[in-house]
Amino acid sequence: MSYQQIAYEAADGIATITLNRPDKLNAFTHVMRAELIDAFDTTDADDSVRAVIVTGAGRGFCAGADLSSGSDTFNADADAERAKDRWAAGEIGGVPRDGGGTVALRIAASRKPVIAAFNGPAVGVGVTMTLPMDIRLAAESAKFGLVFARRGILPEAASTWFLPRVVGISQAMEWVATGRVFGAEEALAGRLVSRVVPDDELLPTARAIAREIADNTSGVSVAVARQLLWGMLSADSPWEAHRLDSRGINHLGAAADAAEGVASFLAKRPAEFPLKVSQDYPDFIPPWPQRPDGV
Amino acid sequence: MSYQQIAYEAADGIATITLNRPDKLNAFTHVMRAELIDAFDTTDADDSVRAVIVTGAGRGFCAGADLSSGSDTFNADADAERAKDRWAAGEIGGVPRDGGGTVALRIAASRKPVIAAFNGPAVGVGVTMTLPMDIRLAAESAKFGLVFARRGILPEAASTWFLPRVVGISQAMEWVATGRVFGAEEALAGRLVSRVVPDDELLPTARAIAREIADNTSGVSVAVARQLLWGMLSADSPWEAHRLDSRGINHLGAAADAAEGVASFLAKRPAEFPLKVSQDYPDFIPPWPQRPDGV
Amino acid sequence: MSYQQIAYEAADGIATITLNRPDKLNAFTHVMRAELIDAFDTTDADDSVRAVIVTGAGRGFCAGADLSSGSDTFNADADAERAKDRWAAGEIGGVPRDGGGTVALRIAASRKPVIAAFNGPAVGVGVTMTLPMDIRLAAESAKFGLVFARRGILPEAASTWFLPRVVGISQAMEWVATGRVFGAEEALAGRLVSRVVPDDELLPTARAIAREIADNTSGVSVAVARQLLWGMLSADSPWEAHRLDSRGINHLGAAADAAEGVASFLAKRPAEFPLKVSQDYPDFIPPWPQRPDGV
Repeated sequence: MSYQQIAYEAADGIATITLNRPDKLNAFTHVMRAELIDAFDTTDADDSVRAVIVTGAGRGFCAGADLSSGSDTFNADADAERAKDRWAAGEIGGVPRDGGGTVALRIAASRKPVIAAFNGPAVGVGVTMTLPMDIRLAAESAKFGLVFARRGILPEAASTWFLPRVVGISQAMEWVATGRVFGAEEALAGRLVSRVVPDDELLPTARAIAREIADNTSGVSVAVARQLLWGMLSADSPWEAHRLDSRGINHLGAAADAAEGVASFLAKRPAEFPLKVSQDYPDFIPPWPQRPDGV
Repeated sequence: MSYQQIAYEAADGIATITLNRPDKLNAFTHVMRAELIDAFDTTDADDSVRAVIVTGAGRGFCAGADLSSGSDTFNADADAERAKDRWAAGEIGGVPRDGGGTVALRIAASRKPVIAAFNGPAVGVGVTMTLPMDIRLAAESAKFGLVFARRGILPEAASTWFLPRVVGISQAMEWVATGRVFGAEEALAGRLVSRVVPDDELLPTARAIAREIADNTSGVSVAVARQLLWGMLSADSPWEAHRLDSRGINHLGAAADAAEGVASFLAKRPAEFPLKVSQDYPDFIPPWPQRPDGV
Repeated sequence: MSYQQIAYEAADGIATITLNRPDKLNAFTHVMRAELIDAFDTTDADDSVRAVIVTGAGRGFCAGADLSSGSDTFNADADAERAKDRWAAGEIGGVPRDGGGTVALRIAASRKPVIAAFNGPAVGVGVTMTLPMDIRLAAESAKFGLVFARRGILPEAASTWFLPRVVGISQAMEWVATGRVFGAEEALAGRLVSRVVPDDELLPTARAIAREIADNTSGVSVAVARQLLWGMLSADSPWEAHRLDSRGINHLGAAADAAEGVASFLAKRPAEFPLKVSQDYPDFIPPWPQRPDGV
């Protein structure tokens, strides 16, 4: 895999995507946007990948949008190159799509679980792109800022939807209304991250969790569970969940991974799950997020 | 009340339902499923019951689905007896209902508040069936596992809907993607339970909370509030809540329990609420969950 | 501004609304209801106001509904004066609106961020009216009670919608089912408040947060972000958020506050945002909450 602004590595069931503009604190660009989407297409298609880690090169995770265009940074009309990317990202209702949102929605649709490892400062889209990831871990030196109101813009990357679901509406509003930068401990208390670890234990911790997933679980089970859990955030009632759960249990319960899962458990040996996500993902699971017609 | 796999006791306003297959760590079966639903029909119909406690006999709470059928455990086609129960639970869209889900939805519809007292390990459906309960307490020796992905199946019992609403989507995904077993303190930190107490204080604590409800509150008030609070998780807007709140305040505010509630408070004496849930539950409260037609 | 039961003060970008019936622990009345709504109309219209603090005069925050009518307190038929107010608050479906709910929905629609500073006991509507506020802070001596079931009535002020979204469904049910009074530390653990501070630091802390907002952020950015974040709680999918985010970024990104936000950041100087909420609030942001026709 050859990318300009990210690095991609896959080994032993774990893909690691590294935001890779360390001299710019990995500031987000249209190139990085397209490369991230491509990388998640890759992890979804590769059955050997069971979990994905996203981290940053150098001393930062992601400084947010690249501000090298100065006052025109967020003005799509003023910069032909960036405008071109915005249109490349697609149009909705006559407006160019927010680029960060296309990454966030791609990650939300991932069939592999995703772990964010915040190795240093994460600001703006550097935080919001991680909200559809499943697990967020912080190094002690990580800092966070939902600084949009300090730049005169808005929380993006569909974060007005994701943020209150991840941290609760009150914590979301406090961070967004003040736009303040806060440390790893406040992120932990506010449930933006689930663990804070010493800097040199960050990647080992992320890898241990990815290892735990890769070594012990059925890839198809995790892929379907991920879609159902995220999807049910939009569901009107638990009856919808019950209908899908029932189909899922009926289908997967009769398949090879369930037989192996129970047999290995009873025999107290590691499981060797035979199903493959690329081939065995059941077609009755609705894709998520479901894009309404005409948007 | 005579049951095979649960025990039922009601006294002093508190019903206690005990999962009762201690030699099997109270593993879940189709018999237990039907008996649990019957027990919640009983607590709803009995005006003397003001709160329900669910706990386990012996050293475990519930080990999850009974795995005595081995590799065929989750294969509804392979076991005539279990298949029969699955069909007994009803069919949706040509698929037998997941049995755990029928229990979860019955508990969700309860008119009495429900307290789970985790006296020991709770795995799979042993956790998910408790998610529609209102309060979850853990003994220090309790352990928990959403182990579905390790068995090659999916979170069931409508837990893809309930779990993210109870513990948040990120915590839900971490426990489901790894399928790991975790202790009472992690359950507390992740908000799966609201308290951890020494083992010998578990039932006394559960009873004290049930006592507090039974001795101080209007049964009709709690029944209606329970339906509204759970139901509003699916509501599109607070206008819907406001419309129902207004009807509720208007109706119950003119009824006997409100008069007694205020009079007893002003007189600094215990309240004696005259209304009965079986007779005085207002008919304008929509049943929850509302099962869509045709499902 | 001249009010009977609240005090209103605005200075240096911060409006302070004080519930002001200290001899009655600021118990809620129809006069207070109407004055609160008027005060939020004022803060929305005044571009110099960048944040709003709500607190109580004397030793309490708000003791809940005024119980001076005794057993008839919640009986709209029994008291012509209160009935008149209930009808003044409007009718929905032939039923007078719950007055607390009209305040809650007005606060939810606020274009300015709102901080609750609990200086002492808050009971019933004294708690529920604060749920649509963005940040809640408690003095150490504050106490809380969702005592509705102890009075024979229901949680009101649209709190059946707001409460589970603010504190989670399990914590909501525990407080509502027991109706018990609890202290500031339990409120913090249950995420009803985000900080507990010594009594004499309460207003300074609230003012420091308001100051942080007023001094560093774009008023239009905060106003739009507030509507989007609260509104997205009702959204069916992140695609809806993405569509609005994209319009918002496209619109505000080309406007003067974004240029100033980036320029001031790069120059390491304080920002002076030129836009005004009264004039520059973009018309494509849907009003929230959206009141369905015919309700």
